Amino acid sequence: MNLVEDLKWRYATKKMNGKTIPQEKLDYILEAARLAPSSSGLQPYKIFVISNKELLQKIKSVAWDQSQILDASHVLVFAAWDGYTLDRIESVFNYTLDQRGLPHETMDAYKEKLWGMYEPLSQEWQANHSAKQAYISFAMAIAAAAEQKVDATPMEGFTPEAVDELLGLKEQGLKSVLILTLGYRDESEDWLVNMKKVRTPKATFITELK
Amino acid sequence: MNLVEDLKWRYATKKMNGKTIPQEKLDYILEAARLAPSSSGLQPYKIFVISNKELLQKIKSVAWDQSQILDASHVLVFAAWDGYTLDRIESVFNYTLDQRGLPHETMDAYKEKLWGMYEPLSQEWQANHSAKQAYISFAMAIAAAAEQKVDATPMEGFTPEAVDELLGLKEQGLKSVLILTLGYRDESEDWLVNMKKVRTPKATFITELK
Repeated sequence: MNLVEDLKWRYATKKMNGKTIPQEKLDYILEAARLAPSSSGLQPYKIFVISNKELLQKIKSVAWDQSQILDASHVLVFAAWDGYTLDRIESVFNYTLDQRGLPHETMDAYKEKLWGMYEPLSQEWQANHSAKQAYISFAMAIAAAAEQKVDATPMEGFTPEAVDELLGLKEQGLKSVLILTLGYRDESEDWLVNMKKVRTPKATFITELK
Repeated sequence: MNLVEDLKWRYATKKMNGKTIPQEKLDYILEAARLAPSSSGLQPYKIFVISNKELLQKIKSVAWDQSQILDASHVLVFAAWDGYTLDRIESVFNYTLDQRGLPHETMDAYKEKLWGMYEPLSQEWQANHSAKQAYISFAMAIAAAAEQKVDATPMEGFTPEAVDELLGLKEQGLKSVLILTLGYRDESEDWLVNMKKVRTPKATFITELK
């Protein structure tokens, strides 16, 4: 199999069957999400891996009551930084430089340029920018799940403020951005499982400028 | 190979060698991008595939003069809808329903719910939301390139308004969001090629709530 075949196989699973996915598959999916690239390598997001049913019941109630949240094996909540700060940027850059055996000054010019760009921008712009980075990690988790033949449902349909409250994200400087349920499809109950996958035709989607 | 190994192999290539990638690899990468999931399946974005050197020279000049733009085989510009309209939503939904052999009324309730949510939101919110969907497609292109052992540089560092102008995007209701250069690394000239890949440690990145 390859990525294109995996992407054809997957679909936004509408009904899951409650079965648990093996730990090594979960670990693999999270590792792909962790390895995703992000702007300036900041990885301004974290993942909450939730299997606590009481908590999931509460999340479901603020996520349009979508059944997958309870019928999944694990539910991932992607939460992004609520904004950039010089401290946050420095902390990531210094860790990177330590890992590479380079002095912290190595990235001073880049850090100043970056902070010079971000600092004047609104908190809302910053939160949107960090959220966008989380979408890349989210996509890698979707691709990894498909590769592992684990079903997944990508979700934006929830009240972020309510999920933030349930997970205590504000205190951690985070905002919930995306949910990905992981589990297995319930073929007999899922209206979407046998529908044709439809995408924008290539001729419309792609414009070549040679 | 698998996705996790591919993600370890790839890096944001800083210097490319000017060689051309085979058409079938380019097609494969674009197909992965086309198959990416998006919110409500709207795919509110398109990809411009650019190999015209005159145009690339102009794009480079509004993209921090990054050398990869000229040394790449092909440059992808991901451009997202500048906002949602009922027409745009209907057009996608009707096409999907036609492909599935279902009457257009099938999605009326969903369409009304969706438009009821989007219509009151600002043009800026809408553009941000469609841009976020493009990040998922962008990530699939990055993963597909790595699988094909094609190097790639993900870029946000350009002036979107200037790229919009160069590509005539405003007239098409689009805004440039992301650039991905595709090509091959120039190992002897790339300062990043031998640096250790560093990511947030798993213990910090993941929070388990069992």
